[in-house]
Amino acid sequence: MDRAPDEVRLWAERTAACLSRLRAEAPQVHVLTSTVAQPLSANLLLAAGARPSMSAEPGEIDAFAERTQALVVNLGMLEASRREAVVRALPILERRGVAWVLDPVKVDRSPARLAFARSLLDHQPAVVRANAAEMAALAPAGAAVRATTGEIDHIAGDGRTLDLAGGHPLMAHVTAMGCAGTGLIAAFLAVEPDAFTAAACALLALAVAGEIAGEKAGGPGSFPAAFLDVLHALDGDTLARRARLG
Amino acid sequence: MDRAPDEVRLWAERTAACLSRLRAEAPQVHVLTSTVAQPLSANLLLAAGARPSMSAEPGEIDAFAERTQALVVNLGMLEASRREAVVRALPILERRGVAWVLDPVKVDRSPARLAFARSLLDHQPAVVRANAAEMAALAPAGAAVRATTGEIDHIAGDGRTLDLAGGHPLMAHVTAMGCAGTGLIAAFLAVEPDAFTAAACALLALAVAGEIAGEKAGGPGSFPAAFLDVLHALDGDTLARRARLG
Amino acid sequence: MDRAPDEVRLWAERTAACLSRLRAEAPQVHVLTSTVAQPLSANLLLAAGARPSMSAEPGEIDAFAERTQALVVNLGMLEASRREAVVRALPILERRGVAWVLDPVKVDRSPARLAFARSLLDHQPAVVRANAAEMAALAPAGAAVRATTGEIDHIAGDGRTLDLAGGHPLMAHVTAMGCAGTGLIAAFLAVEPDAFTAAACALLALAVAGEIAGEKAGGPGSFPAAFLDVLHALDGDTLARRARLG
Repeated sequence: MDRAPDEVRLWAERTAACLSRLRAEAPQVHVLTSTVAQPLSANLLLAAGARPSMSAEPGEIDAFAERTQALVVNLGMLEASRREAVVRALPILERRGVAWVLDPVKVDRSPARLAFARSLLDHQPAVVRANAAEMAALAPAGAAVRATTGEIDHIAGDGRTLDLAGGHPLMAHVTAMGCAGTGLIAAFLAVEPDAFTAAACALLALAVAGEIAGEKAGGPGSFPAAFLDVLHALDGDTLARRARLG
Repeated sequence: MDRAPDEVRLWAERTAACLSRLRAEAPQVHVLTSTVAQPLSANLLLAAGARPSMSAEPGEIDAFAERTQALVVNLGMLEASRREAVVRALPILERRGVAWVLDPVKVDRSPARLAFARSLLDHQPAVVRANAAEMAALAPAGAAVRATTGEIDHIAGDGRTLDLAGGHPLMAHVTAMGCAGTGLIAAFLAVEPDAFTAAACALLALAVAGEIAGEKAGGPGSFPAAFLDVLHALDGDTLARRARLG
Repeated sequence: MDRAPDEVRLWAERTAACLSRLRAEAPQVHVLTSTVAQPLSANLLLAAGARPSMSAEPGEIDAFAERTQALVVNLGMLEASRREAVVRALPILERRGVAWVLDPVKVDRSPARLAFARSLLDHQPAVVRANAAEMAALAPAGAAVRATTGEIDHIAGDGRTLDLAGGHPLMAHVTAMGCAGTGLIAAFLAVEPDAFTAAACALLALAVAGEIAGEKAGGPGSFPAAFLDVLHALDGDTLARRARLG
């Protein structure tokens, strides 16, 4: 027998435990992301139990960076003021020892954005979440956990690896699903100190919720609502039944 | 017998009358709010019968401020250009005698935002809509009606008070519900000159629509669509059956 | 017999062919639009099979303009940085011979916006999509196809005209439906070189999808999800059965 049955049960249990802590503690998660991704990212965090904040105004970012319990830095549609807010926020997070996640959107297509993303790696993201092309372009070294998402999600870091199956093809036809997923990793980091575990459990929750929502939805329009409904109600039994390694 | 049955029937009737006027007159309502709140705020106003506009560009705001029939000033995610647009718009509204509503988002957590919110009170908002912590921090004096929302909504001003029950716990798991509600107060102010009545009726409509939508929705993902559908169809009979004082 | 039966069948077939090419080729469509319109515009493009990008940052726009296969310029909520991005992008599109669509939102209400829109006409939009009041204010001359949308959509240009019926009254109670429709015209331009055909087919797809979604939706809240679901699944048989000339 292979290791899968025990391992998958273990990850399903860890994911259920993270979700329980998230719902009980309702941590604040600050999200610096593109305007197109803000509504779904905020709603996913609220559905999961976290409290999102999203100000990217340089004059306000310090107050949020001093209080947040996790941070998302998403580089999609990177406007100058958000870039400045990121540069102000990261040293504060670093000093406070609070985890942040980098989502290097489309760094494979913009040299300027790639150079900026590389400069941010000095501030030690706990997790980098990207698709395969973005991860290959960025090639983050060092301690960060790498969560490469696609048909199979691949989590690697700290000498460990995990492959997760699940999700649904409709997810590729809904905007901001990637950024929203990065937000859930950040929320899990707020309640789970091990970055590999937080990233793996968040992606497992997304894969299971996405698979169930894809069965319920009538298309890409009804998918997001179904997805948030499922995620909000996701429990240990469902995770144990549905979790699959890649 | 207590005053409740007669009073609640009266408020239900007033709310139905406001909704009828709103649908008949389709007033323009300008909304200066955060990017994350814009889609739901616009859709709530459209569902209720108003015509929203949302430009926060300082170079364009004068034209909108000269024509709008009500204005929302929401301080969430307050970027510098929107701040400038607010400062330009309010004297125009004041001169025209057009009502505006202040939504002092998170002033309890940001001293800079609190100071800005206080400076805006000089321009006489018709209504301040906030949660209890924000209202306590701002402590608006003067003539403004105060609408403090929560499990029970509390409207106070001009020597009158009213407490409203209703709504649904799922509303706390959907982004921008507060801002969207402030937008409805502004829309009601465009068709109802008494600010206390406008605020109370708007919150009553939201409480009833929220309660019904919460019964229909499968979770926080499907809640917003259900909420807008219910609000769009809300009629006097439903209001009379469902309205409840706090 | 009038020309309608043959003509409508022909347009339904052309529309089905455009949709097939769009789904097969998945062109990149860059959309410079207002923040309130971004989520629905992105989701409509994804539902239809295109790949949207939306950066309006002047420092990044060149890279996107060099790669995109079509462009939307929407003037709603026109902030200074997006205005600058538009001015940078259009000469690149012109040099590359890539089609773009102008959506002159509310130029009938803002002289400054009208002047800016007029200056953009020098860069030869393939299509101008507007409501009747905006089109009358802008009065574009030259080669551009004009798509005037309303209860009946009127497409004119290159010596040809076409009137299309369909859609649903709920579409007027959903924000950003106009901008999202402009996005679909751009997506069709990426796979169909004749601008009149691209505009007519895109509006036909929207009219049929809107009519069906209006029958399924419970109100303006549930309309967008139904609309995207229908558009995603729209096929030649449905188009042939439902297409109607105006």
